[in-house]
Amino acid sequence: MEKEIKTIGVLTSGGDASGMNAAIRAVVRKAIYNGKKVKGIYRGYSGLLNEEIRDMTARDVSDTIARGGTILGTARCAEFRTEEGQKLGAEICKKHGIDGLVVIGGDGSFAGAQKLAALGINTIGVPGTIDLDIACTEYTIGFDTAINTAMEAIDKVRDTSTSHERCSIIEVMGRHAGYIALYCGIANGAEDILVPERYNYDEQELINNIIRNRKRGKKHHIIINAEGIGHSTSMARRIQAATGVETRATILGHMQRGGSPTCKDRVYASMMGAYAVDLLCAGKSNRVVGYRHGDFTDFDIDEALAMQKDLPEYMWEVARALSV
Amino acid sequence: MEKEIKTIGVLTSGGDASGMNAAIRAVVRKAIYNGKKVKGIYRGYSGLLNEEIRDMTARDVSDTIARGGTILGTARCAEFRTEEGQKLGAEICKKHGIDGLVVIGGDGSFAGAQKLAALGINTIGVPGTIDLDIACTEYTIGFDTAINTAMEAIDKVRDTSTSHERCSIIEVMGRHAGYIALYCGIANGAEDILVPERYNYDEQELINNIIRNRKRGKKHHIIINAEGIGHSTSMARRIQAATGVETRATILGHMQRGGSPTCKDRVYASMMGAYAVDLLCAGKSNRVVGYRHGDFTDFDIDEALAMQKDLPEYMWEVARALSV
Amino acid sequence: MEKEIKTIGVLTSGGDASGMNAAIRAVVRKAIYNGKKVKGIYRGYSGLLNEEIRDMTARDVSDTIARGGTILGTARCAEFRTEEGQKLGAEICKKHGIDGLVVIGGDGSFAGAQKLAALGINTIGVPGTIDLDIACTEYTIGFDTAINTAMEAIDKVRDTSTSHERCSIIEVMGRHAGYIALYCGIANGAEDILVPERYNYDEQELINNIIRNRKRGKKHHIIINAEGIGHSTSMARRIQAATGVETRATILGHMQRGGSPTCKDRVYASMMGAYAVDLLCAGKSNRVVGYRHGDFTDFDIDEALAMQKDLPEYMWEVARALSV
Amino acid sequence: MEKEIKTIGVLTSGGDASGMNAAIRAVVRKAIYNGKKVKGIYRGYSGLLNEEIRDMTARDVSDTIARGGTILGTARCAEFRTEEGQKLGAEICKKHGIDGLVVIGGDGSFAGAQKLAALGINTIGVPGTIDLDIACTEYTIGFDTAINTAMEAIDKVRDTSTSHERCSIIEVMGRHAGYIALYCGIANGAEDILVPERYNYDEQELINNIIRNRKRGKKHHIIINAEGIGHSTSMARRIQAATGVETRATILGHMQRGGSPTCKDRVYASMMGAYAVDLLCAGKSNRVVGYRHGDFTDFDIDEALAMQKDLPEYMWEVARALSV
Repeated sequence: MEKEIKTIGVLTSGGDASGMNAAIRAVVRKAIYNGKKVKGIYRGYSGLLNEEIRDMTARDVSDTIARGGTILGTARCAEFRTEEGQKLGAEICKKHGIDGLVVIGGDGSFAGAQKLAALGINTIGVPGTIDLDIACTEYTIGFDTAINTAMEAIDKVRDTSTSHERCSIIEVMGRHAGYIALYCGIANGAEDILVPERYNYDEQELINNIIRNRKRGKKHHIIINAEGIGHSTSMARRIQAATGVETRATILGHMQRGGSPTCKDRVYASMMGAYAVDLLCAGKSNRVVGYRHGDFTDFDIDEALAMQKDLPEYMWEVARALSV
Repeated sequence: MEKEIKTIGVLTSGGDASGMNAAIRAVVRKAIYNGKKVKGIYRGYSGLLNEEIRDMTARDVSDTIARGGTILGTARCAEFRTEEGQKLGAEICKKHGIDGLVVIGGDGSFAGAQKLAALGINTIGVPGTIDLDIACTEYTIGFDTAINTAMEAIDKVRDTSTSHERCSIIEVMGRHAGYIALYCGIANGAEDILVPERYNYDEQELINNIIRNRKRGKKHHIIINAEGIGHSTSMARRIQAATGVETRATILGHMQRGGSPTCKDRVYASMMGAYAVDLLCAGKSNRVVGYRHGDFTDFDIDEALAMQKDLPEYMWEVARALSV
Repeated sequence: MEKEIKTIGVLTSGGDASGMNAAIRAVVRKAIYNGKKVKGIYRGYSGLLNEEIRDMTARDVSDTIARGGTILGTARCAEFRTEEGQKLGAEICKKHGIDGLVVIGGDGSFAGAQKLAALGINTIGVPGTIDLDIACTEYTIGFDTAINTAMEAIDKVRDTSTSHERCSIIEVMGRHAGYIALYCGIANGAEDILVPERYNYDEQELINNIIRNRKRGKKHHIIINAEGIGHSTSMARRIQAATGVETRATILGHMQRGGSPTCKDRVYASMMGAYAVDLLCAGKSNRVVGYRHGDFTDFDIDEALAMQKDLPEYMWEVARALSV
Repeated sequence: MEKEIKTIGVLTSGGDASGMNAAIRAVVRKAIYNGKKVKGIYRGYSGLLNEEIRDMTARDVSDTIARGGTILGTARCAEFRTEEGQKLGAEICKKHGIDGLVVIGGDGSFAGAQKLAALGINTIGVPGTIDLDIACTEYTIGFDTAINTAMEAIDKVRDTSTSHERCSIIEVMGRHAGYIALYCGIANGAEDILVPERYNYDEQELINNIIRNRKRGKKHHIIINAEGIGHSTSMARRIQAATGVETRATILGHMQRGGSPTCKDRVYASMMGAYAVDLLCAGKSNRVVGYRHGDFTDFDIDEALAMQKDLPEYMWEVARALSV
């Protein structure tokens, strides 16, 4: 029999991503709209264990949809990876009357959500990560903002790169996944794209490509390098030495996480937050919200965590064809 | 038996949309990559009939992916709606050796493509319209840029609206389709959204809503009005008279079409342009490229033109719930 | 002998302008830094008369520097234009212990400040208006943000204008002053600029210019029209009829007021807010802060209100020369 | 007696800066407007020595005002620092009929201009550098765009910094001058600003400041570090070790040079380019254009190169007061 939820808690966990505030706002407002109470849990699982919990009203999320970061804060929490930590978390939820919980974060955060669900707290995960590396969904909160931020920065680097006829290596985020690199590679018309999924790093090929392009009269050579490959600065030094072409590295870093979210991030994050609340109100637990095959949907967390995904092969091929 | 294509023509038709240049660039470069020749047709079907046709090289589309508008230009063409015009178009294609043609535009442009296909020119449509009102596809070139442009403008109007505690009516594009209005309505946290698909215009309800919100202490009241509803200026006058709340209308207009495309528009437009070339190289004709259920795909133009689509119901519901 | 100030009040008045929050923040923080107390007065002079006055701490202005609009709100106030209103305002200041007051606004707001100064409240004006139409200063809060917002919108309109080979009339703010129009005219490479200061409206000349440019092969024709000239929509209709060139009007409207302030607006508004506090702490009253000849400075309000300024003649000449 | 100029050459030299294209465009169009011929010299002094010189028409600079970088390219040139190089440069100018030359760049570029002037080529310098480190002028091309680019990036870093309650060190450009750091320090509400001109690096003070702010409840701590101080990454490591506060460094790098110029950079660069042409047409040589005390003006290059400037003291004080 399904349990009726009265109070919904919401927390953000792991790396922050632009659009998380839209998701929080949607959780709060949809829950109130559905007749539930809402509590905000600050600083992720760490704040849960420290009982940093406050009632939230529709007003508390006014003027937040356009803001980057997360108004609830986020933090890593080693303690919550232990069995005691998880039990304590579930007890604190119960103590505060939180019978439904929305966890906005990545796979690591969902693993925690899974434990809480097993301990009797109805829990729903919402995918929030700029890296797009959650297998069950084609959309994750923050990816769209991150690729636009990176792309705009690379457009600027390209201007100066062209003026000086330089080679530029731009390192974008993505420790295990090359989606940001692939999208920017296409969007910025990069000559080379380096991603962890197609790791076959052949510096000589890069060098040959630069020399070939220089001969054909190309005035710049843009290499998008995913964080998971890294070492952009030393790579630049070696390439300059080998090609004689002035080469500079730029590591975009944390700016990719922040900033006012794009329209897609605001809208999809809102939809996912609302959808999570509707799942809880329908008595569901241990589910993760996804966007797949053109629709918002949901998966069992266990299954979601077991899924795998890879860079789309056709997109990778097109990226290579267009860089010619 | 399938005909092997040797020369691919490309044109843009109808209203311009940001990302069209990315599609043109992809057509040119993928065609060359596939060993074909490419010809650019300027000013849409009108330019076809005037033989404004030039050879294109990979170099001709350098530094175009980041630019708004269409480097090929676009125009309306009454003559091409006649049978003679279409026959002439097909003959001119043949005269210039164009045996495959990519038409980037909306439903009206596809109707022309259909005729050329029937006259023996292998033709593929690529959906380019900021309104998202092409039934067979979840993505159309320019929509993502348009919603971000509109959203950023509305964010700014909201600042001044809040400072003066005004009601603001912002008219966004969308003559027959309310997608831009719906997306901005959610993304900008609008209090009311007016779209042609849910046309049930009750000004008294709007007025009541404004008065209710004012009593609850809300400092602004944002109404997103789709072009298809229109009359924003007179609406503002009547609302101000009825509520006593200072009310201003802003009609965003043509800026929504232009501007450097977003990352999604650059990437998806590139994919669609490349996909159209691959369809032609596979001997296909009378197809329109779409993005559906998470993948790039294609449809028979006749079927595509017969499809219908409506605003997603759940998104509409969530929009209403979150505005509370 | 100069009076020592203990409590500084701050209000924003007239039309809002981006950067006002930076000025408010600077007033609050510099006052506290100088050992004073600060009170925020909400909704301009109207809020003063209604005693909408609250203590402000350094914390109350955290995370406001990047926001458009004014956190204090603004409103028109007919009552404060009367002698009784002004006396009441001075009494309320005294009642709340406000012995120094910073008024952020335009010439109309300074006229009020002048009255309060005469009634014994040490008062300093800070120029906040997007129109740049305050004679004693080369900088006013919000102008830099407004010209960038307008320019970016016009860049977008230009993309679509070029694609369709249209003439576009873009109406920018500036009822009595053409600075926004002049700056955008140069920055957007406009073919024609219409400003109230050089009013000599000759539609036939415009029409001839369009026809001449069309013959020379120019693909767009951008006319920047200041609000003070107005009538852009009917102008567009007449020009289209006379030239046969498709002509569209866009009225940018209130978006020009809002948005996150530019770096210059944040920095200069901060400097002016701090400078106003330092003037009060030095016992000054009835002064208006200005930026002139490369430095922050101050003027007697009476003298400031009597000054006149005109569009810089050389800039106007260059604008015309570059449009050729 | 003053020599009448017939053909004006234009080149960009040193680091590129956004707005250089506006200056080039203005040189070309104002020269044509004044009845002169114009030649573009590619790749700075290096291109001059290689005779990379082409005629330019008004059309060649169409659609360039909104673009970052320099369409003429730029390069370093050791040979031009020698007497033979300079003589050769002057001879090539004469050979190509270039009797007037506009050099857009920084102090190093003006030193070259000085030599050419001494060798009989009428030469005018236009200040183009994002660092604002040219003593005779309050404005240099590219500074305004650079501070806005840096500020927007830092706003984004701040979002994620706040969400994680981190300390962030952001390194901005400025090898010998801290203007970008100072402006961003104020505009982004930084807690600490490190500039070469006030070099008194006391890491213990930084550490104490971070600990003090943390105790007062501040959720982030932003340190803007000028390139001239550098070592941001190792600084971050040491600060994290000493404070226990997670600390990250971001080096913004070359993106600060590029990007579409701001309105001020487009307008002022246009004015300076036009002004340089008018100086040449008035028979002037060995001058550098400046903006000073509210007006465009010019200085003898020898005197300009001998001037010194320092960060404005009051701005530095205000920056410190507001960070409290």
